[in-house]
Amino acid sequence: MIIVLKPEHTEEDLQRIVRRLEDKGLGAHISKGEQRTIVGAIGDERVLRETPIESWPGVESVLPILKPYKLVSREFKSEDTIIKVNGQEIGGRQIQLFAGPCAVESREILEEIALSLQPLGVGFLRGGAFKPRTSPYSFQGWGEKGLKMLAAVREETGMLVVTELMDPRDTVLVCKYADIVQIGTRNMQNFRLLTEVGNIDKPVILKRGMSATIKELLMSAEYIAAQGNEKIILCERGIRTFETETRNTLDLSAVPLLKQLTHLPVIVDPSHAVGRVDLVPAMARAAIAAGADGLLIEVHVRPEEALSDGPQSLRPAAFASLLEECSRVARAVGRTL
Amino acid sequence: MIIVLKPEHTEEDLQRIVRRLEDKGLGAHISKGEQRTIVGAIGDERVLRETPIESWPGVESVLPILKPYKLVSREFKSEDTIIKVNGQEIGGRQIQLFAGPCAVESREILEEIALSLQPLGVGFLRGGAFKPRTSPYSFQGWGEKGLKMLAAVREETGMLVVTELMDPRDTVLVCKYADIVQIGTRNMQNFRLLTEVGNIDKPVILKRGMSATIKELLMSAEYIAAQGNEKIILCERGIRTFETETRNTLDLSAVPLLKQLTHLPVIVDPSHAVGRVDLVPAMARAAIAAGADGLLIEVHVRPEEALSDGPQSLRPAAFASLLEECSRVARAVGRTL
Amino acid sequence: MIIVLKPEHTEEDLQRIVRRLEDKGLGAHISKGEQRTIVGAIGDERVLRETPIESWPGVESVLPILKPYKLVSREFKSEDTIIKVNGQEIGGRQIQLFAGPCAVESREILEEIALSLQPLGVGFLRGGAFKPRTSPYSFQGWGEKGLKMLAAVREETGMLVVTELMDPRDTVLVCKYADIVQIGTRNMQNFRLLTEVGNIDKPVILKRGMSATIKELLMSAEYIAAQGNEKIILCERGIRTFETETRNTLDLSAVPLLKQLTHLPVIVDPSHAVGRVDLVPAMARAAIAAGADGLLIEVHVRPEEALSDGPQSLRPAAFASLLEECSRVARAVGRTL
Amino acid sequence: MIIVLKPEHTEEDLQRIVRRLEDKGLGAHISKGEQRTIVGAIGDERVLRETPIESWPGVESVLPILKPYKLVSREFKSEDTIIKVNGQEIGGRQIQLFAGPCAVESREILEEIALSLQPLGVGFLRGGAFKPRTSPYSFQGWGEKGLKMLAAVREETGMLVVTELMDPRDTVLVCKYADIVQIGTRNMQNFRLLTEVGNIDKPVILKRGMSATIKELLMSAEYIAAQGNEKIILCERGIRTFETETRNTLDLSAVPLLKQLTHLPVIVDPSHAVGRVDLVPAMARAAIAAGADGLLIEVHVRPEEALSDGPQSLRPAAFASLLEECSRVARAVGRTL
Repeated sequence: MIIVLKPEHTEEDLQRIVRRLEDKGLGAHISKGEQRTIVGAIGDERVLRETPIESWPGVESVLPILKPYKLVSREFKSEDTIIKVNGQEIGGRQIQLFAGPCAVESREILEEIALSLQPLGVGFLRGGAFKPRTSPYSFQGWGEKGLKMLAAVREETGMLVVTELMDPRDTVLVCKYADIVQIGTRNMQNFRLLTEVGNIDKPVILKRGMSATIKELLMSAEYIAAQGNEKIILCERGIRTFETETRNTLDLSAVPLLKQLTHLPVIVDPSHAVGRVDLVPAMARAAIAAGADGLLIEVHVRPEEALSDGPQSLRPAAFASLLEECSRVARAVGRTL
Repeated sequence: MIIVLKPEHTEEDLQRIVRRLEDKGLGAHISKGEQRTIVGAIGDERVLRETPIESWPGVESVLPILKPYKLVSREFKSEDTIIKVNGQEIGGRQIQLFAGPCAVESREILEEIALSLQPLGVGFLRGGAFKPRTSPYSFQGWGEKGLKMLAAVREETGMLVVTELMDPRDTVLVCKYADIVQIGTRNMQNFRLLTEVGNIDKPVILKRGMSATIKELLMSAEYIAAQGNEKIILCERGIRTFETETRNTLDLSAVPLLKQLTHLPVIVDPSHAVGRVDLVPAMARAAIAAGADGLLIEVHVRPEEALSDGPQSLRPAAFASLLEECSRVARAVGRTL
Repeated sequence: MIIVLKPEHTEEDLQRIVRRLEDKGLGAHISKGEQRTIVGAIGDERVLRETPIESWPGVESVLPILKPYKLVSREFKSEDTIIKVNGQEIGGRQIQLFAGPCAVESREILEEIALSLQPLGVGFLRGGAFKPRTSPYSFQGWGEKGLKMLAAVREETGMLVVTELMDPRDTVLVCKYADIVQIGTRNMQNFRLLTEVGNIDKPVILKRGMSATIKELLMSAEYIAAQGNEKIILCERGIRTFETETRNTLDLSAVPLLKQLTHLPVIVDPSHAVGRVDLVPAMARAAIAAGADGLLIEVHVRPEEALSDGPQSLRPAAFASLLEECSRVARAVGRTL
Repeated sequence: MIIVLKPEHTEEDLQRIVRRLEDKGLGAHISKGEQRTIVGAIGDERVLRETPIESWPGVESVLPILKPYKLVSREFKSEDTIIKVNGQEIGGRQIQLFAGPCAVESREILEEIALSLQPLGVGFLRGGAFKPRTSPYSFQGWGEKGLKMLAAVREETGMLVVTELMDPRDTVLVCKYADIVQIGTRNMQNFRLLTEVGNIDKPVILKRGMSATIKELLMSAEYIAAQGNEKIILCERGIRTFETETRNTLDLSAVPLLKQLTHLPVIVDPSHAVGRVDLVPAMARAAIAAGADGLLIEVHVRPEEALSDGPQSLRPAAFASLLEECSRVARAVGRTL
């Protein structure tokens, strides 16, 4: 950590800073330049995170040098984390597919969708039983009834179940039915929920908050890892920008960047990012070319009747041709799909 | 709701759309222009919110006409809501002050801060017992112990207590000690938590999410109101933009805009918005000039030792002179402080 | 154009609106709903663009239906525009490469770079003779001297020259040397410059402004087309968002979206978007997978000495391996590179 | 400037860095921490701006310490700059008003507007003769004819003229008629135009680009100052964010922040920021409370017929009551208006 002093700081300010650093068990390295004096704090700067150094007399600014996350960082673990779940691997050479409706609407529709996906090689069925809806008057999901529908369809198709957890009080319930627990974009900084899923023995898909920086996403992953659960799958799903033609702006540079900063698998959700079926296939291809370990895609047999996210849900036929295109791109980058 | 048809739509598409609207109990008003045919859906368009009309064949786009919120809107209730809490009024001519440390650190420090604020006429003491921190390694608050400290200081000073609720499981606990419950910026779309505070009998301060639109803020307020709790205080606290000199960008136009769209009181938190003490006074004055009903300001007796948000906490002396300036501006706009 | 009336509008307001529309030669289609009355303006709504209807008494809001651009739209011309320039084609099956240094620094360095690119099949050499630099104290480019260096290297290598025009007063000069004229991101809404290049007989690369919407990009293209020059190549180069790990956020969804809205070729500049060499290859692959017609990439033989944009310039060897990867992706999506 | 080395850097890398710094005439101060080695470059770091240190072998990142602008900084000149123009002062105790229509439409309308403003004490008449319009099909301004109308109305009313310069080729022409030259938001980084107005002997209003950081705004001011013209008035006019209820988001924290960083006067344009008359008065009051030295406000006698920006133009009566409110706020903060 570098502490830049104000041009008008006093010698007393400087001495006080050195003393305070030493009190924290850190060394202080003073460097007097022509225009500014700077103090380097030598030692584990994580000790200083809690200390409001900017408020100390004589301090102009503070420049951190180290990253604030540890367990999820590449420096901590250099090889890729491969997450195994009931015979499937996430983060390896095989690109995984997570597909299904936004919300579980009925047993019949879910089954119909799943039966259209399973022959295409989709390993994971996604569908919400608890839905975070912007309006209190919108369909909020079937709750446990929906979870049971997912489990029943898993029984029938062999596809594994991914579903969202919204409330710490539902953790046990959701874990009873889910193979992978999803933390949604609006809950990326619901720290209590993160702590909760840090204590379960299931993989977690952590979706990037719609205005979260890469660093904040990794800090939220660190929350989960700090509790002992390192089976974390990061998901880029678009960030909020000024552009209104698409629902969000898919930040694909997050994929190679995260691959560099962390050992965790990274998947992409083009459906929520663009919010329009016509752009989903191109963005799915691009995600794979950028190095994604998986795709999370909304598919519905009758989007025009979907209770949620119809306009961004692909029909099975369109999804099948998306997969064909994506397969070719996957091979081009040395992966399989 | 206006449905714009694609230039290449068929007559069959049009008839299907009319039929589907009628099935929902809505009238359909067709208008054939030179370049586009449009269909106006006559009736309560809230019925259509759940319907993915964009996915219907022949549809190019859908333009809503009505606002998606109701109970919190000015149209629903034209006069200002004034919230009464233990003898204080929020939303009336008097501008209210909510001040205190970011986190409750110790009984002694809290008391020292409160005793510096009370003589200045601050009616509400703020302080977090549960802290949503970006890092799992940061101080997370004292929990119930912190709530008890707040209650003890209320006993001593007569100031009312505002504190944050982060987890639906703590609702009863927090309500036992708080006079006003705060929902933080990261929980503005934690819909389960909103539902929870919709069922309590305490006023709620709802902070705008850092990337939430005004419409989303009002939808979150609607979640609370829909459960029966209409004692909602909206709080503008800065939005996330590309500018990095300030922690967030304080969107003061939200104040007059919200005043127009809703009957609820609107307060402003300049401390979190700018994140630097040197800019807080100017933004506090501007907030009042823009029409805010209250100010939420971080004050600490020793910011250089604060466990959280030191760089944005004012010392009592600086806060006192801020109040003097703000009083003059309040009078200039016909309010008292 | 749909005009939504205020709930409290008077019959006189309505009649005045109808009359004013008729005065403009438009029909008015009135539709009285349960909650709002709306008026559809029948006719060419472009007539109304200049009219501040929102300010008319009784009007609540105005919803445009048609797009504000015409010549550059797919509706105007459905087949892809293929731009031919000295034997090369942009916008066809072949993906084009535009590579070179940010700035022309010296004849020797430019030559060295070009000779490393030409054997790799790069058709277009890019390099700035006029540089828009954020600081007045930074290297501003060699001007005509730089243009002459570009022309000399073209002579030697056969590569075509792409270079930026910053000032309408330099149009004749730049056109004397350039094969393609580039309008930089900071000049996307320099409407005088757009008008200027609308009158030349050279293709123009129009870079998206760093905070420009897709619609604004197309309106700027329309400025050029309206003067008669339809040889316009759109370039996505990253938009400004809150994320600071990358220089900008590459909005790859702009590629399929533009392909849908316009007939013009679309290329991608991953170098300026991410600003870091380590992420350029992944984003170049993704751009091609998303459907880009070309790549604009900064290459330098000695980035550590570059006078501009060193940190985002690839060395020739890294660029060569990027091309190999991109070739495979290009084939996977049915293109050649 | 602080150079942070990669954990895996070699001794040779370190020596090379030191040598290169010394070659530039700078000292190198090495500090080996537990986790990182850092090198402080001692001397004028502006020398290093042009050097792509991030690309040097062994370098992880580079942290600048000094601000990149000089002439416009408070460090360079501590007292406020007060700009005098024909008997008026900008930047002093008196808050200045710049009001008028967006575009000069006709001599009659301009006169009518000016005659409504002059009795209210408005010193500066604003109006565009050259208009940067998003669409090539919109009214582009009357050019010199418009400038002549402005001059004629100045003759008649004594109000000084503020008008926009869009093209370096019009500099002489615009200066012939204008008392203050305005550089619009889309031209904030039109560096040729900045250089041009750096060489004139008239004050310049420099509007913040809609996605420009404070630092970039100051760098653009530095461009003008570097040519010798220090009569620069900075103007905050709203930045582009995700919020769509207002045209832009007025960043009022820019006012106290700029006051701290620079000695130049700072004015605010609430009209363009919010884009709706109903919010202009509140934001004007807030701007003054935040410390603005002036207000730039669009006023039109018949907004419903304005050729440009009707929806954000106040009528004279509404403007007069805005002024009354603003006067009271001005007095509350120790200013006059």
